[in-house]
Amino acid sequence: MTATGISIRRATRDDVPAIVRMLADDFLGKDRERPDEPLPQSYYDAFERVDADGNLQLVVAVDSMGLVVGSLQLCVLPGLSSQGATRALVEDVRVDGKLRGQGVGEALLRWAIAESKSRGCHLVELLTSRARVDAQRFYVRLGFVESHAGMTLRL
Amino acid sequence: MTATGISIRRATRDDVPAIVRMLADDFLGKDRERPDEPLPQSYYDAFERVDADGNLQLVVAVDSMGLVVGSLQLCVLPGLSSQGATRALVEDVRVDGKLRGQGVGEALLRWAIAESKSRGCHLVELLTSRARVDAQRFYVRLGFVESHAGMTLRL
Repeated sequence: MTATGISIRRATRDDVPAIVRMLADDFLGKDRERPDEPLPQSYYDAFERVDADGNLQLVVAVDSMGLVVGSLQLCVLPGLSSQGATRALVEDVRVDGKLRGQGVGEALLRWAIAESKSRGCHLVELLTSRARVDAQRFYVRLGFVESHAGMTLRL
Repeated sequence: MTATGISIRRATRDDVPAIVRMLADDFLGKDRERPDEPLPQSYYDAFERVDADGNLQLVVAVDSMGLVVGSLQLCVLPGLSSQGATRALVEDVRVDGKLRGQGVGEALLRWAIAESKSRGCHLVELLTSRARVDAQRFYVRLGFVESHAGMTLRL
């Protein structure tokens, strides 16, 4: 099912508080985010870094009222392997907790896949926490395969 | 064990053939690369895209004779999550087949971890094919945990 009335657009600085609320409203995010008012400057600084980089696109899903109900970040990554093919990396997919299962995530991912194609990528890749079992099922339904181990090192 | 006499430096255009030979000398890479002479232009075009991007670093490991014996690509990825923390993504780690198990990969990864720290990243992440069982053990030995599923979609 794809949500009706959902559209995807580039995030602006004014969307940062809504995005951070979604990042914090999450069983993994709740301990690592600070959705205070005013929002810590570090979030706005990060937005500026993302917004200035032509290979990064932070987008939001908005409902028919214009409210932000989801977000993700797409990274276009050139590289030498596969005859110099460019890859896309999807990061930080989040959907408003009240709207889970209503197609917002699917609308976001379908946008990311179409955008990756239009930018000449041959592959979309992502890491999703082992704890997000529902997310893994969701990605498989969209055609992803769990072909890789996702490994992390905290610094 | 860390290889003696190995140093890590930024890749130049002249290193592209040696990097492609390593990409092709691999059970997954052999069917998707074309290490012909002359090398397909697509590899040089990809090198230019990588080299022009301040958030991407393609590096090579060189031995005491100056020969290229390994390579990897480090991507520095700003983003909003974790209070606007920047992540690093390691891609396309390759070591000359004749030098496996001699510390070249470890030298490359230790460089990537140190560089990620110096650029303010809070996390290093990577995807490694489920088929690369030895690689997964190698990353665990360096402190990585298999915290995530690595999912891909071919376009």
